[in-house]
Amino acid sequence: MNDAVAIPPQELIRAMAQRARAAARILARTPTATKAAALRAAAQAIRASETQLLAANARDMEAAAARGLSGAMLDRLKLDGKRIAGIADGLDAVAGLADPVGAVIDESERPNGLKLSRVRVPLGVIGIIYESRPNVTADAGALAMMAGNAVILRGGSEARESNRAIHDCLSEGLAAAGLPEDAIQLVPTADRAAVGAMLGAAGLIDIILPRGGKALVARVQEEARVPVLAHLDGNNHLYIDRAADPAKAVPLAVNAKLRRTGICGATETLLIDRAYPNPRPILAALIEAGCEVRGTEEIRAIEPRATAVSPEDWDTEYLDAIVAVRLVDGVADATAHIAQHGSSHTDAIVTEDAATAELFLAEVDSAIVMWNASTQFADGGEFGLGAEIGISTGRLHARGPVALEGLTTYKWLVRGTGQLRP
Amino acid sequence: MNDAVAIPPQELIRAMAQRARAAARILARTPTATKAAALRAAAQAIRASETQLLAANARDMEAAAARGLSGAMLDRLKLDGKRIAGIADGLDAVAGLADPVGAVIDESERPNGLKLSRVRVPLGVIGIIYESRPNVTADAGALAMMAGNAVILRGGSEARESNRAIHDCLSEGLAAAGLPEDAIQLVPTADRAAVGAMLGAAGLIDIILPRGGKALVARVQEEARVPVLAHLDGNNHLYIDRAADPAKAVPLAVNAKLRRTGICGATETLLIDRAYPNPRPILAALIEAGCEVRGTEEIRAIEPRATAVSPEDWDTEYLDAIVAVRLVDGVADATAHIAQHGSSHTDAIVTEDAATAELFLAEVDSAIVMWNASTQFADGGEFGLGAEIGISTGRLHARGPVALEGLTTYKWLVRGTGQLRP
Repeated sequence: MNDAVAIPPQELIRAMAQRARAAARILARTPTATKAAALRAAAQAIRASETQLLAANARDMEAAAARGLSGAMLDRLKLDGKRIAGIADGLDAVAGLADPVGAVIDESERPNGLKLSRVRVPLGVIGIIYESRPNVTADAGALAMMAGNAVILRGGSEARESNRAIHDCLSEGLAAAGLPEDAIQLVPTADRAAVGAMLGAAGLIDIILPRGGKALVARVQEEARVPVLAHLDGNNHLYIDRAADPAKAVPLAVNAKLRRTGICGATETLLIDRAYPNPRPILAALIEAGCEVRGTEEIRAIEPRATAVSPEDWDTEYLDAIVAVRLVDGVADATAHIAQHGSSHTDAIVTEDAATAELFLAEVDSAIVMWNASTQFADGGEFGLGAEIGISTGRLHARGPVALEGLTTYKWLVRGTGQLRP
Repeated sequence: MNDAVAIPPQELIRAMAQRARAAARILARTPTATKAAALRAAAQAIRASETQLLAANARDMEAAAARGLSGAMLDRLKLDGKRIAGIADGLDAVAGLADPVGAVIDESERPNGLKLSRVRVPLGVIGIIYESRPNVTADAGALAMMAGNAVILRGGSEARESNRAIHDCLSEGLAAAGLPEDAIQLVPTADRAAVGAMLGAAGLIDIILPRGGKALVARVQEEARVPVLAHLDGNNHLYIDRAADPAKAVPLAVNAKLRRTGICGATETLLIDRAYPNPRPILAALIEAGCEVRGTEEIRAIEPRATAVSPEDWDTEYLDAIVAVRLVDGVADATAHIAQHGSSHTDAIVTEDAATAELFLAEVDSAIVMWNASTQFADGGEFGLGAEIGISTGRLHARGPVALEGLTTYKWLVRGTGQLRP
């Protein structure tokens, strides 16, 4: 399908953002039940449109195959009955989340009688730039809208037909609930200049959330004049302390590394305390589960099946069944390694020594720091947030899993009786 | 004085930021009492150094006068005994503030037994770029450090000697408390390229706070690759509703506009409900207090001493004894005007009708929205925050007055007993 219109991308994005701003003003004051009704109606529309969704996706898959996309990319792009049901169920789940808008964060009364409160309000207009997986159209659009925002979605060109078909269902849901369809808009052109226009739309778009690979995130961070809530690398560490319980250390290492290797919460480097009595079973379990263990000389002396590690390994997010392993001199050495090589995503310690654990929790400056738990738990759903739009590795606004609350801000309300400032 | 070294600005800032990062790791774990002790020692050093501070400031004043700086600029630059005492007292006041670091924001326990908590931690390395007033060196440095951050200060070249002298006292305070002097660094060069180097120092500096005029803020917003917490215009509105009590409306209008005209919380536009019975005394009181009233034809018909308003007036932050005035058709028209022309800083309604007030509080999308109170209360001190580093007009991270809490972020702590993710 061709672009319906040949509007220059900057004008297109400006016009979309202005419509989004008008919709955001309405959404900001829309009751929770109405927003939830829109998402439930959208879920119903998704279920009722399975045939059309599959047909649209088949066109994307055909074009992608013709362009020679890899099997992994094709798998991410593909929709089937189960995935479509999952999209609809996801919309229903977001409809059931607690609405953060209007919540009072804190209140105080001043000696002069002024009553102050901080109240949660939506962020405003959110731009989301993402790749291949069509379910993001529904997930991200629903989360942003449920937090009272208007959202401009820019999906990958390879998923264009699928995204349009899903977006039609979202529009149907909004209309059914009497909400403006401009609350969730999909950029209608595959022109990559539209991404640049979104990134440059300071004052029109309040925040950009990139969801995608390193190239996308790097482009966003380089070009954006709009604030960005970025989801960067998860170069995560699991540290096995001298006081670790071997009955926990072995399964935690295997789960943290191998449960799913392609997610951002997967462990990439294993640090083992030189004073830990018996590291061999940890290394053996990883290798026997199909993991390539890249180790220092000391590690290879303990486990000859390990291969040699290179300096770049310490800074590498493999997203694969590979782990870099070295010995360290206790918790201080472990936290120093993490400070040097970590990406401030998720790092964990395994120990039975509470004082050592608390030192690690305090010292490691990552969005998520864990004690005796698998780094694979780094996930908004696992944290009880219901759903997440990403995991922020930045330090501002929201850190770690970003769900509805992270898509809001606050304003100060001041109620007086005619007070003048002296 | 010449620059001690001719290091290229990017290398200089990189080296300063690396030292700041090392200091930040220490500051993040420094007890409240130690940080407070450093500030109290710095306050003592300021008091003990009055002679040196006055001499340094005299050199700045002389150079500034020779360069033909305006009287207002010279006044901002000038230090005297009272201002020096104020700087020292300000340091003592920050030392007495509640420390946000380590506070638990929320906690939960998951069905699998994982215990989650969100704990406040410092932002890290903060860059502050500011102009003329030398007291900012002490105020901003103290607030950033008290929240556990390392800070890189870049003051205006016209205040260079004064800033150095104040910074020497801060260093003395840090040293007295056994803290690294790198926790509060002052950029030693007047080279404007150092500002660009700070703005481009993504990954080295965590956040930039600009404090200064429009030209500085615009440069920061244009060039920054580091996240910015900006303090933009305060184009603030006071809306006099039909149900306003005239006994409150007149003094509120005069106070909101004229108490101090040069601060960002000053009202710039007055909106009067067409159904408000008697607007004349409001206009007369402003004029008789020395304010130029720029009004529409309707306003000039009510008060002939008013001058003509032009369309640009609605978007102008005068920071002077000038106010733009028009009639509006009730609260909906007032909020529409504010949505179109406001700068999302501080807007207020005067009314005795609680329902109308709540509508205004809900509908106006500004950092601070007030009911029956002067917009001049927009200030961290007046809000009970003890001190402020600025008023954020952005939507992310911190909105309105930014004090210690706004200079922190959080991390997630997860405490388990060996849980594996299924």
